[in-house]
Amino acid sequence: MAISIAHLGPPGTYTEAAALTLVEHLSQTSGREALLCPYPSIPQTLRSVAAREADLAVVPVENSIHGSVAITLDSLWELDQLKIQYALVLPIAHALLSRGSAFEKLKTVYSHPQALGQCQRWLEAFLPEVQQMATNSTTEALQYLDEDLTAAAIASERAAKLYNLPILASEIADYPDNCTRFWVVGLQDDGRGDRISLAFSTPTNTPGALVNPLQVFAQRGINLSRIESRPTKRLLGEYIFFIELEGDITQEPVQASLAALQEHAEVLKILGNYSVLPRTQSSHQA
Amino acid sequence: MAISIAHLGPPGTYTEAAALTLVEHLSQTSGREALLCPYPSIPQTLRSVAAREADLAVVPVENSIHGSVAITLDSLWELDQLKIQYALVLPIAHALLSRGSAFEKLKTVYSHPQALGQCQRWLEAFLPEVQQMATNSTTEALQYLDEDLTAAAIASERAAKLYNLPILASEIADYPDNCTRFWVVGLQDDGRGDRISLAFSTPTNTPGALVNPLQVFAQRGINLSRIESRPTKRLLGEYIFFIELEGDITQEPVQASLAALQEHAEVLKILGNYSVLPRTQSSHQA
Repeated sequence: MAISIAHLGPPGTYTEAAALTLVEHLSQTSGREALLCPYPSIPQTLRSVAAREADLAVVPVENSIHGSVAITLDSLWELDQLKIQYALVLPIAHALLSRGSAFEKLKTVYSHPQALGQCQRWLEAFLPEVQQMATNSTTEALQYLDEDLTAAAIASERAAKLYNLPILASEIADYPDNCTRFWVVGLQDDGRGDRISLAFSTPTNTPGALVNPLQVFAQRGINLSRIESRPTKRLLGEYIFFIELEGDITQEPVQASLAALQEHAEVLKILGNYSVLPRTQSSHQA
Repeated sequence: MAISIAHLGPPGTYTEAAALTLVEHLSQTSGREALLCPYPSIPQTLRSVAAREADLAVVPVENSIHGSVAITLDSLWELDQLKIQYALVLPIAHALLSRGSAFEKLKTVYSHPQALGQCQRWLEAFLPEVQQMATNSTTEALQYLDEDLTAAAIASERAAKLYNLPILASEIADYPDNCTRFWVVGLQDDGRGDRISLAFSTPTNTPGALVNPLQVFAQRGINLSRIESRPTKRLLGEYIFFIELEGDITQEPVQASLAALQEHAEVLKILGNYSVLPRTQSSHQA
């Protein structure tokens, strides 16, 4: 039976491109076919797996320019039965799409907040008077272009081809090497790979509450590749830490660190032990 | 001469309410008068101080529900001549404003992305079909209400009074005790207070690169009250850490920690040594 893969839609989003990379990987490694299922938001994408409507979900985690995708971290903390099975990194190339012919006539630019954030300086330099409007996905932004020649959208060149929309400008991100990291999430934990992601909350107002939990890894020579904090939403100054470390859950120093971490953490959730899929410059990007 | 205070405008924003709290504090402690200067964005607010157009800027740093205000951290890292002079915390109470009379007829809700983020569950529960549109400030969202009875905005009750707009629903944030922390930033560093904020980038791909810099404080018994990471924007996996610690820059252990931190950091910037203004439930909130 085909594997169903949930992602932020409609078709044409960067997350769909990431899902297509996963489809290729699954086809090459296990010969399994896959079916893509677009959802209108990241929380709904993740909930579809928790509710067993889809087998896997592909969600963006962080971008090299704009940083963390907070809604992904917050949703994963809540839906704690989900486990990360793979990570993958995708190069991101933003274009400005419009049916209008000139920059001077543009009044509004629509896109996902992450894409607007990644092109902030470009927009300030070339479209300073244009109103920026956030949409649920880069593809959703395209619906505003058909009847309005003063509207533009930021999306991929792939989306431009898919919906037959003219490109007014290419490569408009503020910094080169724009990349987004995605997680592939499912209900089962394969428990294989060289990365471990976990999240924990700490008791408040305890001296060292933020640093002591991080030291359990340093003391055992385990390298952290990422530390991200999110608010607990209960009280200003209370945080949940999302940590990524290099290691395998079966290694003794990793197990000892996690046991020690349990002493410092209020709530500790292992988000997954997984591997990073090899980077592709696949045709989905073009 | 009056002190000029830049803030995100137009008048009626939560940042203006925070600026009014500062005005009260300055008037009580030094008898100095102040002049509020609204700016259309957070980067422009901060740049006004760097360019000596305004004496101080008030900017939001983090919210108890939605987390960090990334653009504030990114802008302060860039404009490194600015120094934090005070922190202040403001309770935030969001209301739904509209000239339309019924939820069922609403098609669009406008607000700042932070305010939309703080009311996400409420919006999903009560206005699931309504399109969410991001604006540059909560006050900017109000301009859409006058001619469109299907439009609503999320802003404060204070803004509703100021612009004479009807309130359709009150207290619509997803969690109680919603608070935002603000920084007051100027060109001079008073170097007084019990908080120190700093930011640093680390060399990449070095084992312990993320944890070693944090340990310099733990080793000397200095408590960190916040750790936040932002991307360097150069390469995925390279971060700038924003750290807040309890201490005074004149204390010996603090100076020793900062000297040790210098060894681990690629670039280190002291953002300020400041105090937290007492919390007020002032009339500006109502």
